[in-house]
Amino acid sequence: MAQPSHVVYPGDPGAFAEEAAELLFPDVATTARPALRAVFEEVEAGRAPVGVVPLENSQAGSVVETFDHLAQREVTIVGEVVVRVDHALLALPGTRVEDVKVVASHPQAIAQCQEFLESLGAEIVAVYATSRAASRIVEERRFGEAAVASPRAAALYGLEVLAAGIQTHADNRTRFVAISARSEPVGPPDKTSILFGTTNTPGALHRCLGAFAGRGLNMSKLESRPLGAEPWQYRFYADVDAGLPDPAMAEALRELEAHAEMVRVLGTYPRWRDPTG
Amino acid sequence: MAQPSHVVYPGDPGAFAEEAAELLFPDVATTARPALRAVFEEVEAGRAPVGVVPLENSQAGSVVETFDHLAQREVTIVGEVVVRVDHALLALPGTRVEDVKVVASHPQAIAQCQEFLESLGAEIVAVYATSRAASRIVEERRFGEAAVASPRAAALYGLEVLAAGIQTHADNRTRFVAISARSEPVGPPDKTSILFGTTNTPGALHRCLGAFAGRGLNMSKLESRPLGAEPWQYRFYADVDAGLPDPAMAEALRELEAHAEMVRVLGTYPRWRDPTG
Repeated sequence: MAQPSHVVYPGDPGAFAEEAAELLFPDVATTARPALRAVFEEVEAGRAPVGVVPLENSQAGSVVETFDHLAQREVTIVGEVVVRVDHALLALPGTRVEDVKVVASHPQAIAQCQEFLESLGAEIVAVYATSRAASRIVEERRFGEAAVASPRAAALYGLEVLAAGIQTHADNRTRFVAISARSEPVGPPDKTSILFGTTNTPGALHRCLGAFAGRGLNMSKLESRPLGAEPWQYRFYADVDAGLPDPAMAEALRELEAHAEMVRVLGTYPRWRDPTG
Repeated sequence: MAQPSHVVYPGDPGAFAEEAAELLFPDVATTARPALRAVFEEVEAGRAPVGVVPLENSQAGSVVETFDHLAQREVTIVGEVVVRVDHALLALPGTRVEDVKVVASHPQAIAQCQEFLESLGAEIVAVYATSRAASRIVEERRFGEAAVASPRAAALYGLEVLAAGIQTHADNRTRFVAISARSEPVGPPDKTSILFGTTNTPGALHRCLGAFAGRGLNMSKLESRPLGAEPWQYRFYADVDAGLPDPAMAEALRELEAHAEMVRVLGTYPRWRDPTG
Protein backbone atom coordinates (compact mmCIF):
# COMPACT_ATOMS: atom_id res chain seq x y z
CA MET A 1 0.00 0.00 0.00
CA ALA A 2 1.03 3.65 -0.42
CA GLN A 3 2.20 5.36 2.78
CA PRO A 4 -0.94 6.44 4.66
CA SER A 5 -1.27 10.12 5.58
CA HIS A 6 -1.64 9.22 9.28
CA VAL A 7 -2.38 6.31 11.61
CA VAL A 8 -4.83 6.30 14.54
CA TYR A 9 -4.45 4.15 17.65
CA PRO A 10 -6.43 3.71 20.90
CA GLY A 11 -5.18 5.38 24.07
CA ASP A 12 -3.02 8.38 24.77
CA PRO A 13 0.54 9.17 23.66
CA GLY A 14 2.88 6.69 25.36
CA ALA A 15 0.54 3.75 24.72
CA PHE A 16 1.98 0.45 23.52
CA ALA A 17 -0.32 0.91 20.51
CA GLU A 18 1.59 4.09 19.60
CA GLU A 19 4.84 2.11 19.65
CA ALA A 20 3.18 -0.54 17.45
CA ALA A 21 2.02 2.11 14.96
CA GLU A 22 5.53 3.62 14.78
CA LEU A 23 7.15 0.20 14.23
CA LEU A 24 4.81 -0.68 11.38
CA PHE A 25 4.69 2.81 9.80
CA PRO A 26 8.07 4.37 10.72
CA ASP A 27 7.68 7.75 8.98
CA VAL A 28 3.96 8.36 9.40
CA ALA A 29 2.26 10.66 11.91
CA THR A 30 0.34 8.81 14.63
CA THR A 31 -2.75 10.18 16.40
CA ALA A 32 -4.32 8.94 19.64
CA ARG A 33 -8.06 8.20 19.84
CA PRO A 34 -9.97 7.86 23.11
CA ALA A 35 -11.06 4.22 22.69
CA LEU A 36 -10.91 1.12 20.54
CA ARG A 37 -14.44 1.77 19.28
CA ALA A 38 -13.45 5.26 18.05
CA VAL A 39 -10.53 3.81 16.06
CA PHE A 40 -12.77 1.21 14.38
CA GLU A 41 -15.51 3.76 13.63
CA GLU A 42 -13.11 6.26 12.10
CA VAL A 43 -11.35 3.65 9.96
CA GLU A 44 -14.63 2.05 8.85
CA ALA A 45 -15.99 5.44 7.77
CA GLY A 46 -12.76 6.17 5.86
CA ARG A 47 -11.99 9.26 8.00
CA ALA A 48 -8.63 7.66 8.97
CA PRO A 49 -6.72 5.62 6.35
CA VAL A 50 -5.29 3.13 8.86
CA GLY A 51 -5.75 2.17 12.52
CA VAL A 52 -3.53 0.01 14.73
CA VAL A 53 -5.33 -2.08 17.40
CA PRO A 54 -4.29 -4.81 19.89
CA LEU A 55 -5.41 -8.35 18.96
CA GLU A 56 -3.81 -10.71 21.48
CA ASN A 57 -1.25 -10.90 24.24
CA SER A 58 1.13 -13.82 24.67
CA GLN A 59 0.04 -14.28 28.28
CA ALA A 60 -3.46 -12.86 28.79
CA GLY A 61 -4.83 -14.08 25.45
CA SER A 62 -7.21 -12.42 23.03
CA VAL A 63 -8.55 -8.88 23.25
CA VAL A 64 -12.18 -9.94 22.87
CA GLU A 65 -13.42 -6.43 22.07
CA THR A 66 -11.12 -6.28 19.01
CA PHE A 67 -12.37 -9.67 17.79
CA ASP A 68 -15.97 -8.52 18.10
CA HIS A 69 -15.30 -5.30 16.16
CA LEU A 70 -13.43 -7.25 13.44
CA ALA A 71 -16.42 -9.59 13.10
CA GLN A 72 -18.97 -6.80 12.90
CA ARG A 73 -17.34 -3.99 10.93
CA GLU A 74 -16.37 -3.45 7.31
CA VAL A 75 -12.62 -3.20 7.84
CA THR A 76 -9.74 -5.36 6.62
CA ILE A 77 -6.56 -6.45 8.42
CA VAL A 78 -3.71 -5.11 6.25
CA GLY A 79 -0.69 -5.77 8.52
CA GLU A 80 0.52 -7.02 11.88
CA VAL A 81 3.26 -6.11 14.36
CA VAL A 82 4.40 -7.69 17.63
CA VAL A 83 5.52 -5.40 20.48
CA ARG A 84 7.45 -6.44 23.57
CA VAL A 85 5.41 -5.29 26.57
CA ASP A 86 7.22 -4.42 29.80
CA HIS A 87 4.84 -3.02 32.37
CA ALA A 88 5.85 -0.64 35.13
CA LEU A 89 4.06 0.78 38.17
CA LEU A 90 4.01 4.59 37.77
CA ALA A 91 3.00 7.32 40.24
CA LEU A 92 3.60 10.99 41.05
CA PRO A 93 7.23 11.62 42.03
CA GLY A 94 7.83 11.01 45.73
CA THR A 95 5.16 8.33 46.04
CA ARG A 96 6.24 5.17 47.90
CA VAL A 97 4.81 1.74 47.02
CA GLU A 98 3.08 1.59 50.43
CA ASP A 99 1.25 4.89 49.65
CA VAL A 100 -0.52 3.33 46.67
CA LYS A 101 -4.22 2.79 47.45
CA VAL A 102 -5.58 2.59 43.89
CA VAL A 103 -4.04 1.09 40.73
CA ALA A 104 -5.58 1.94 37.35
CA SER A 105 -4.89 0.31 33.99
CA HIS A 106 -6.38 -1.47 31.00
CA PRO A 107 -7.98 -4.82 31.99
CA GLN A 108 -5.45 -6.73 29.83
CA ALA A 109 -2.50 -5.07 31.56
CA ILE A 110 -4.12 -5.83 34.92
CA ALA A 111 -4.40 -9.48 33.89
CA GLN A 112 -0.74 -9.56 32.81
CA CYS A 113 0.43 -8.18 36.18
CA GLN A 114 -2.02 -10.09 38.36
CA GLU A 115 0.54 -11.67 40.71
CA PHE A 116 2.28 -8.37 41.42
CA LEU A 117 -1.04 -6.54 41.91
CA GLU A 118 -2.39 -9.16 44.30
CA SER A 119 0.69 -8.72 46.48
CA LEU A 120 0.03 -4.95 46.51
CA GLY A 121 -3.51 -5.20 47.89
CA ALA A 122 -4.67 -1.90 46.32
CA GLU A 123 -8.05 -1.24 44.72
CA ILE A 124 -7.95 -2.03 40.97
CA VAL A 125 -9.66 0.36 38.55
CA ALA A 126 -10.25 -0.46 34.88
CA VAL A 127 -9.65 2.32 32.33
CA TYR A 128 -9.64 2.06 28.53
CA ALA A 129 -5.86 2.36 28.00
CA THR A 130 -2.66 1.97 30.03
CA SER A 131 -1.56 5.41 28.87
CA ARG A 132 -4.85 6.96 30.06
CA ALA A 133 -4.18 5.52 33.52
CA ALA A 134 -0.84 7.38 33.47
CA SER A 135 -2.07 10.69 32.07
CA ARG A 136 -4.99 11.06 34.47
CA ILE A 137 -2.66 10.82 37.47
CA VAL A 138 -0.78 13.88 36.20
CA GLU A 139 -3.80 15.84 34.96
CA GLU A 140 -5.81 15.35 38.13
CA ARG A 141 -2.86 15.23 40.59
CA ARG A 142 -4.03 11.84 41.87
CA PHE A 143 -1.85 11.20 44.92
CA GLY A 144 -2.02 7.61 46.20
CA GLU A 145 -2.96 6.33 42.73
CA ALA A 146 -0.59 4.38 40.48
CA ALA A 147 -0.84 3.26 36.86
CA VAL A 148 0.30 0.06 35.19
CA ALA A 149 1.79 1.42 31.96
CA SER A 150 4.98 1.62 29.89
CA PRO A 151 8.26 3.20 31.06
CA ARG A 152 7.76 5.32 27.91
CA ALA A 153 4.57 6.75 29.46
CA ALA A 154 6.53 7.55 32.66
CA ALA A 155 9.05 9.61 30.69
CA LEU A 156 6.29 11.35 28.70
CA TYR A 157 4.15 12.36 31.69
CA GLY A 158 6.90 12.95 34.25
CA LEU A 159 5.84 10.06 36.49
CA GLU A 160 8.16 7.99 38.67
CA VAL A 161 8.71 4.27 38.06
CA LEU A 162 7.99 2.60 41.43
CA ALA A 163 8.55 -0.91 40.06
CA ALA A 164 9.56 -2.16 36.59
CA GLY A 165 8.99 -5.43 34.74
CA ILE A 166 5.96 -6.23 36.94
CA GLN A 167 4.28 -8.58 34.44
CA THR A 168 3.98 -12.22 35.56
CA HIS A 169 5.84 -13.60 32.52
CA ALA A 170 9.08 -11.82 31.63
CA ASP A 171 8.67 -12.45 27.89
CA ASN A 172 5.38 -10.64 27.41
CA ARG A 173 4.35 -9.54 23.91
CA THR A 174 1.27 -8.07 22.32
CA ARG A 175 0.28 -8.58 18.71
CA PHE A 176 -1.32 -5.57 17.04
CA VAL A 177 -3.01 -5.48 13.65
CA ALA A 178 -3.34 -2.60 11.20
CA ILE A 179 -6.89 -2.16 9.92
CA SER A 180 -8.18 -0.20 6.93
CA ALA A 181 -11.39 0.29 4.95
CA ARG A 182 -9.30 -0.52 1.86
CA SER A 183 -8.03 -4.08 1.54
CA GLU A 184 -4.52 -3.35 0.29
CA PRO A 185 -1.90 -5.05 2.55
CA VAL A 186 1.19 -3.19 3.79
CA GLY A 187 3.42 -5.65 1.87
CA PRO A 188 3.36 -9.01 0.04
CA PRO A 189 0.94 -11.18 2.06
CA ASP A 190 1.98 -14.55 3.54
CA LYS A 191 -0.56 -14.79 6.38
CA THR A 192 -4.38 -14.73 6.31
CA SER A 193 -6.96 -14.21 9.08
CA ILE A 194 -10.33 -15.90 8.63
CA LEU A 195 -13.62 -15.92 10.52
CA PHE A 196 -15.90 -18.91 9.98
CA GLY A 197 -18.94 -20.56 11.51
CA THR A 198 -19.73 -24.27 11.65
CA THR A 199 -22.90 -26.24 12.13
CA ASN A 200 -23.05 -27.85 15.57
CA THR A 201 -22.73 -31.40 14.19
CA PRO A 202 -20.04 -34.03 14.87
CA GLY A 203 -16.96 -33.46 12.77
CA ALA A 204 -18.01 -30.06 11.36
CA LEU A 205 -14.94 -28.22 12.69
CA HIS A 206 -12.70 -31.15 11.74
CA ARG A 207 -13.92 -30.96 8.12
CA CYS A 208 -13.32 -27.20 8.06
CA LEU A 209 -9.73 -27.55 9.33
CA GLY A 210 -9.15 -30.36 6.82
CA ALA A 211 -9.33 -27.75 4.04
CA PHE A 212 -6.01 -26.36 5.34
CA ALA A 213 -4.40 -29.49 6.81
CA GLY A 214 -4.93 -31.42 3.54
CA ARG A 215 -2.83 -28.79 1.74
CA GLY A 216 -0.02 -28.57 4.30
CA LEU A 217 -1.11 -25.08 5.38
CA ASN A 218 -0.23 -24.33 9.02
CA MET A 219 -2.82 -22.73 11.29
CA SER A 220 -0.94 -20.56 13.80
CA LYS A 221 -4.02 -19.65 15.85
CA LEU A 222 -7.56 -20.93 16.31
CA GLU A 223 -9.96 -19.26 18.68
CA SER A 224 -13.64 -19.86 19.38
CA ARG A 225 -15.78 -16.81 20.14
CA PRO A 226 -19.40 -16.94 21.33
CA LEU A 227 -21.83 -15.51 18.79
CA GLY A 228 -23.45 -13.35 21.46
CA ALA A 229 -27.07 -13.33 20.45
CA GLU A 230 -27.40 -17.13 20.57
CA PRO A 231 -26.01 -18.82 23.71
CA TRP A 232 -23.35 -21.49 23.11
CA GLN A 233 -23.07 -20.87 19.37
CA TYR A 234 -19.48 -20.19 18.37
CA ARG A 235 -17.58 -18.67 15.50
CA PHE A 236 -13.94 -19.48 14.88
CA TYR A 237 -11.14 -17.03 14.25
CA ALA A 238 -8.14 -18.63 12.49
CA ASP A 239 -4.72 -17.42 11.31
CA VAL A 240 -3.22 -19.41 8.44
CA ASP A 241 0.45 -19.11 7.43
CA ALA A 242 -0.16 -18.36 3.75
CA GLY A 243 -1.27 -15.35 1.74
CA LEU A 244 -4.46 -15.19 -0.31
CA PRO A 245 -2.51 -15.09 -3.62
CA ASP A 246 -1.11 -18.56 -2.79
CA PRO A 247 -3.11 -21.01 -4.98
CA ALA A 248 -3.23 -23.60 -2.14
CA MET A 249 -4.79 -20.95 0.12
CA ALA A 250 -7.37 -19.99 -2.50
CA GLU A 251 -8.31 -23.67 -2.94
CA ALA A 252 -8.48 -24.19 0.82
CA LEU A 253 -10.88 -21.26 1.16
CA ARG A 254 -13.14 -22.69 -1.56
CA GLU A 255 -13.22 -26.02 0.29
CA LEU A 256 -13.87 -24.25 3.60
CA GLU A 257 -16.84 -22.43 2.06
CA ALA A 258 -18.33 -25.81 1.09
CA HIS A 259 -18.13 -27.05 4.72
CA ALA A 260 -18.74 -23.93 6.81
CA GLU A 261 -21.96 -22.06 7.52
CA MET A 262 -20.22 -18.73 6.89
CA VAL A 263 -16.69 -17.67 5.92
CA ARG A 264 -15.21 -14.18 5.94
CA VAL A 265 -11.60 -13.30 5.12
CA LEU A 266 -10.63 -10.65 7.67
CA GLY A 267 -7.41 -9.86 5.81
CA THR A 268 -4.27 -11.15 4.12
CA TYR A 269 -1.00 -9.44 5.01
CA PRO A 270 2.75 -9.93 5.66
CA ARG A 271 3.73 -11.85 8.79
CA TRP A 272 5.65 -9.67 11.26
CA ARG A 273 9.39 -10.31 11.33
CA ASP A 274 11.12 -8.77 14.33
CA PRO A 275 13.86 -6.51 12.89
CA THR A 276 15.90 -7.02 16.09
CA GLY A 277 15.73 -10.81 15.64
CA MET B 1 -20.90 -39.06 44.22
CA ALA B 2 -22.19 -39.00 47.78
CA GLN B 3 -23.70 -35.68 48.91
CA PRO B 4 -20.80 -33.39 49.87
CA SER B 5 -20.80 -31.90 53.37
CA HIS B 6 -20.62 -28.37 51.91
CA VAL B 7 -19.82 -26.46 48.73
CA VAL B 8 -17.58 -23.39 48.40
CA TYR B 9 -18.02 -20.67 45.76
CA PRO B 10 -16.25 -17.40 44.93
CA GLY B 11 -17.83 -14.12 45.98
CA ASP B 12 -20.27 -13.14 48.69
CA PRO B 13 -23.78 -14.40 49.44
CA GLY B 14 -26.04 -13.29 46.59
CA ALA B 15 -23.46 -14.19 43.93
CA PHE B 16 -24.56 -15.99 40.77
CA ALA B 17 -22.08 -18.71 41.84
CA GLU B 18 -24.15 -19.25 45.00
CA GLU B 19 -27.24 -19.78 42.85
CA ALA B 20 -25.24 -22.22 40.69
CA ALA B 21 -24.10 -24.17 43.77
CA GLU B 22 -27.70 -24.39 45.08
CA LEU B 23 -29.03 -25.59 41.70
CA LEU B 24 -26.42 -28.35 41.44
CA PHE B 25 -26.46 -29.36 45.13
CA PRO B 26 -30.01 -28.49 46.31
CA ASP B 27 -29.76 -29.63 49.94
CA VAL B 28 -26.14 -28.84 50.71
CA ALA B 29 -24.78 -25.88 52.69
CA THR B 30 -22.92 -23.32 50.54
CA THR B 31 -20.08 -21.11 51.80
CA ALA B 32 -18.64 -17.98 50.16
CA ARG B 33 -14.88 -17.60 49.62
CA PRO B 34 -13.18 -14.27 48.87
CA ALA B 35 -11.81 -15.17 45.43
CA LEU B 36 -11.57 -17.79 42.71
CA ARG B 37 -8.03 -18.64 43.78
CA ALA B 38 -9.17 -19.39 47.35
CA VAL B 39 -11.83 -21.81 46.05
CA PHE B 40 -9.30 -23.69 43.92
CA GLU B 41 -6.71 -23.82 46.72
CA GLU B 42 -9.20 -25.12 49.28
CA VAL B 43 -10.60 -27.78 46.94
CA GLU B 44 -7.14 -28.88 45.74
CA ALA B 45 -5.96 -29.28 49.36
CA GLY B 46 -9.09 -31.30 50.18
CA ARG B 47 -10.25 -28.80 52.81
CA ALA B 48 -13.52 -28.36 50.87
CA PRO B 49 -15.08 -31.40 49.17
CA VAL B 50 -16.51 -29.43 46.22
CA GLY B 51 -16.23 -25.94 44.71
CA VAL B 52 -18.43 -24.26 42.09
CA VAL B 53 -16.66 -21.82 39.73
CA PRO B 54 -17.66 -19.88 36.57
CA LEU B 55 -16.22 -21.24 33.30
CA GLU B 56 -17.80 -19.26 30.48
CA ASN B 57 -20.52 -16.77 29.68
CA SER B 58 -22.71 -16.99 26.59
CA GLN B 59 -21.83 -13.41 25.61
CA ALA B 60 -18.49 -12.42 27.17
CA GLY B 61 -16.80 -15.77 26.58
CA SER B 62 -14.41 -17.72 28.76
CA VAL B 63 -13.36 -16.86 32.29
CA VAL B 64 -9.63 -17.12 31.53
CA GLU B 65 -8.61 -17.26 35.19
CA THR B 66 -10.70 -20.43 35.68
CA PHE B 67 -9.12 -22.07 32.63
CA ASP B 68 -5.64 -21.31 33.93
CA HIS B 69 -6.43 -22.76 37.38
CA LEU B 70 -7.95 -25.89 35.78
CA ALA B 71 -4.78 -26.34 33.71
CA GLN B 72 -2.42 -25.93 36.65
CA ARG B 73 -4.14 -27.55 39.64
CA GLU B 74 -4.89 -31.11 40.69
CA VAL B 75 -8.67 -30.83 40.60
CA THR B 76 -11.30 -32.61 38.49
CA ILE B 77 -14.49 -31.26 36.94
CA VAL B 78 -17.29 -33.41 38.43
CA GLY B 79 -20.37 -31.52 37.23
CA GLU B 80 -21.73 -28.49 35.37
CA VAL B 81 -24.69 -26.12 35.69
CA VAL B 82 -25.95 -23.25 33.56
CA VAL B 83 -27.42 -20.18 35.28
CA ARG B 84 -29.47 -17.44 33.63
CA VAL B 85 -27.75 -14.14 34.42
CA ASP B 86 -29.86 -10.99 34.65
CA HIS B 87 -27.77 -8.05 35.77
CA ALA B 88 -29.17 -5.05 37.62
CA LEU B 89 -27.72 -1.70 38.67
CA LEU B 90 -27.93 -1.50 42.48
CA ALA B 91 -27.29 1.41 44.84
CA LEU B 92 -28.24 2.73 48.28
CA PRO B 93 -31.97 3.50 48.53
CA GLY B 94 -32.77 7.01 47.32
CA THR B 95 -29.94 7.12 44.77
CA ARG B 96 -30.90 8.39 41.30
CA VAL B 97 -29.18 7.10 38.16
CA GLU B 98 -27.68 10.59 37.59
CA ASP B 99 -26.07 10.46 41.08
CA VAL B 100 -23.96 7.44 40.11
CA LYS B 101 -20.30 8.43 39.72
CA VAL B 102 -18.68 5.00 40.15
CA VAL B 103 -19.87 1.54 39.08
CA ALA B 104 -18.17 -1.53 40.54
CA SER B 105 -18.49 -5.15 39.43
CA HIS B 106 -16.66 -8.24 38.23
CA PRO B 107 -14.88 -7.65 34.88
CA GLN B 108 -17.09 -10.27 33.17
CA ALA B 109 -20.28 -8.55 34.35
CA ILE B 110 -18.84 -5.22 33.18
CA ALA B 111 -18.21 -6.78 29.75
CA GLN B 112 -21.76 -8.14 29.61
CA CYS B 113 -23.27 -4.71 30.36
CA GLN B 114 -20.84 -2.65 28.30
CA GLU B 115 -23.42 -0.78 26.20
CA PHE B 116 -25.46 0.26 29.23
CA LEU B 117 -22.34 1.30 31.18
CA GLU B 118 -20.97 3.38 28.31
CA SER B 119 -24.22 5.35 28.20
CA LEU B 120 -23.87 5.99 31.95
CA GLY B 121 -20.41 7.59 31.73
CA ALA B 122 -19.40 6.65 35.29
CA GLU B 123 -15.97 5.43 36.41
CA ILE B 124 -15.76 1.62 36.22
CA VAL B 125 -14.07 -0.28 39.06
CA ALA B 126 -13.17 -3.95 38.87
CA VAL B 127 -13.79 -6.10 41.96
CA TYR B 128 -13.51 -9.86 42.31
CA ALA B 129 -17.24 -10.64 42.46
CA THR B 130 -20.54 -8.98 41.54
CA SER B 131 -21.80 -9.69 45.07
CA ARG B 132 -18.74 -8.00 46.59
CA ALA B 133 -19.55 -4.87 44.58
CA ALA B 134 -23.01 -4.91 46.20
CA SER B 135 -21.93 -5.70 49.77
CA ARG B 136 -19.23 -3.03 49.94
CA ILE B 137 -21.75 -0.30 49.09
CA VAL B 138 -23.76 -1.24 52.18
CA GLU B 139 -20.83 -1.92 54.52
CA GLU B 140 -19.02 1.31 53.67
CA ARG B 141 -22.12 3.45 52.94
CA ARG B 142 -20.78 4.31 49.50
CA PHE B 143 -23.13 7.03 48.23
CA GLY B 144 -22.75 7.74 44.51
CA GLU B 145 -21.49 4.23 43.86
CA ALA B 146 -23.53 1.51 42.13
CA ALA B 147 -22.94 -2.21 41.62
CA VAL B 148 -23.71 -4.42 38.65
CA ALA B 149 -25.07 -7.52 40.41
CA SER B 150 -28.10 -9.78 40.72
CA PRO B 151 -31.56 -8.66 41.90
CA ARG B 152 -30.99 -11.41 44.51
CA ALA B 153 -28.04 -9.40 45.87
CA ALA B 154 -30.29 -6.30 46.04
CA ALA B 155 -32.79 -8.14 48.23
CA LEU B 156 -30.04 -9.60 50.42
CA TYR B 157 -28.22 -6.33 51.10
CA GLY B 158 -31.18 -3.93 51.07
CA LEU B 159 -30.08 -2.09 47.95
CA GLU B 160 -32.39 -0.46 45.43
CA VAL B 161 -32.60 -1.66 41.82
CA LEU B 162 -32.01 1.48 39.68
CA ALA B 163 -32.18 -0.47 36.40
CA ALA B 164 -32.85 -4.15 35.65
CA GLY B 165 -31.87 -6.41 32.75
CA ILE B 166 -28.97 -4.12 31.82
CA GLN B 167 -26.93 -6.81 30.00
CA THR B 168 -26.44 -6.23 26.26
CA HIS B 169 -27.97 -9.59 25.26
CA ALA B 170 -31.27 -10.47 26.94
CA ASP B 171 -30.53 -14.21 26.94
CA ASN B 172 -27.36 -14.14 29.02
CA ARG B 173 -26.18 -17.34 30.72
CA THR B 174 -23.12 -18.44 32.62
CA ARG B 175 -21.85 -21.99 32.75
CA PHE B 176 -20.37 -23.04 36.09
CA VAL B 177 -18.47 -26.24 36.83
CA ALA B 178 -18.18 -28.18 40.08
CA ILE B 179 -14.59 -29.09 40.94
CA SER B 180 -13.25 -31.63 43.43
CA ALA B 181 -9.95 -33.24 44.43
CA ARG B 182 -11.76 -36.57 44.00
CA SER B 183 -12.74 -37.54 40.48
CA GLU B 184 -16.21 -38.93 41.18
CA PRO B 185 -18.82 -37.17 38.97
CA VAL B 186 -22.14 -35.92 40.40
CA GLY B 187 -24.04 -38.36 38.15
CA PRO B 188 -23.62 -40.68 35.13
CA PRO B 189 -21.17 -38.85 32.82
CA ASP B 190 -22.06 -37.99 29.21
CA LYS B 191 -19.70 -35.04 28.68
CA THR B 192 -15.90 -34.78 28.97
CA SER B 193 -13.56 -31.78 29.21
CA ILE B 194 -10.06 -32.22 27.83
CA LEU B 195 -6.91 -30.11 27.71
CA PHE B 196 -4.39 -30.93 24.98
CA GLY B 197 -1.33 -29.47 23.32
CA THR B 198 -0.29 -29.86 19.69
CA THR B 199 2.99 -29.46 17.88
CA ASN B 200 3.03 -26.32 15.75
CA THR B 201 3.06 -28.24 12.47
CA PRO B 202 0.56 -28.19 9.59
CA GLY B 203 -2.42 -30.41 10.29
CA ALA B 204 -1.54 -31.17 13.94
CA LEU B 205 -4.82 -29.81 15.32
CA HIS B 206 -6.77 -31.38 12.46
CA ARG B 207 -5.33 -34.82 13.31
CA CYS B 208 -6.21 -34.32 16.99
CA LEU B 209 -9.84 -33.41 16.19
CA GLY B 210 -10.02 -36.37 13.82
CA ALA B 211 -9.86 -38.68 16.84
CA PHE B 212 -13.34 -37.44 17.79
CA ALA B 213 -14.81 -36.60 14.37
CA GLY B 214 -13.93 -40.08 13.04
CA ARG B 215 -16.11 -41.63 15.76
CA GLY B 216 -19.08 -39.28 15.39
CA LEU B 217 -18.32 -37.58 18.74
CA ASN B 218 -19.49 -33.95 18.83
CA MET B 219 -17.19 -31.26 20.19
CA SER B 220 -19.38 -28.61 21.82
CA LYS B 221 -16.54 -26.21 22.58
CA LEU B 222 -12.95 -25.67 21.46
CA GLU B 223 -10.85 -22.87 22.88
CA SER B 224 -7.19 -22.02 22.41
CA ARG B 225 -5.34 -20.63 25.43
CA PRO B 226 -1.81 -19.20 25.34
CA LEU B 227 0.66 -21.31 27.32
CA GLY B 228 1.92 -18.22 29.12
CA ALA B 229 5.59 -18.92 29.53
CA GLU B 230 6.21 -19.36 25.80
CA PRO B 231 4.75 -16.67 23.53
CA TRP B 232 2.33 -17.87 20.81
CA GLN B 233 2.29 -21.47 22.02
CA TYR B 234 -1.28 -22.62 22.61
CA ARG B 235 -3.10 -25.35 24.45
CA PHE B 236 -6.61 -26.35 23.53
CA TYR B 237 -9.55 -26.82 25.85
CA ALA B 238 -12.29 -29.03 24.38
CA ASP B 239 -15.70 -30.27 25.54
CA VAL B 240 -16.86 -33.53 23.96
CA ASP B 241 -20.47 -34.75 24.19
CA ALA B 242 -19.65 -38.23 25.56
CA GLY B 243 -18.64 -39.64 28.92
CA LEU B 244 -15.35 -41.39 29.61
CA PRO B 245 -17.06 -44.79 30.13
CA ASP B 246 -18.26 -44.63 26.48
CA PRO B 247 -15.96 -47.01 24.53
CA ALA B 248 -15.83 -44.60 21.54
CA MET B 249 -14.63 -41.85 23.89
CA ALA B 250 -11.95 -44.07 25.42
CA GLU B 251 -10.72 -45.01 21.93
CA ALA B 252 -10.76 -41.37 20.80
CA LEU B 253 -8.61 -40.40 23.79
CA ARG B 254 -6.07 -43.12 22.96
CA GLU B 255 -5.88 -41.82 19.40
CA LEU B 256 -5.58 -38.22 20.65
CA GLU B 257 -2.66 -39.24 22.87
CA ALA B 258 -0.86 -40.59 19.80
CA HIS B 259 -1.20 -37.23 17.97
CA ALA B 260 -0.96 -34.65 20.75
CA GLU B 261 2.04 -33.40 22.70
CA MET B 262 0.11 -33.64 25.96
CA VAL B 263 -3.42 -34.68 26.94
CA ARG B 264 -5.15 -34.23 30.27
CA VAL B 265 -8.76 -35.17 31.02
CA LEU B 266 -10.09 -32.33 33.17
CA GLY B 267 -13.22 -34.30 34.06
CA THR B 268 -16.12 -36.41 32.86
CA TYR B 269 -19.57 -35.51 34.19
CA PRO B 270 -23.29 -35.26 33.37
CA ARG B 271 -24.35 -32.53 30.91
CA TRP B 272 -26.60 -29.93 32.54
CA ARG B 273 -30.27 -30.24 31.68
CA ASP B 274 -32.31 -27.20 32.60
CA PRO B 275 -35.10 -28.47 34.89
CA THR B 276 -37.35 -25.59 33.75
CA GLY B 277 -36.88 -26.57 30.08
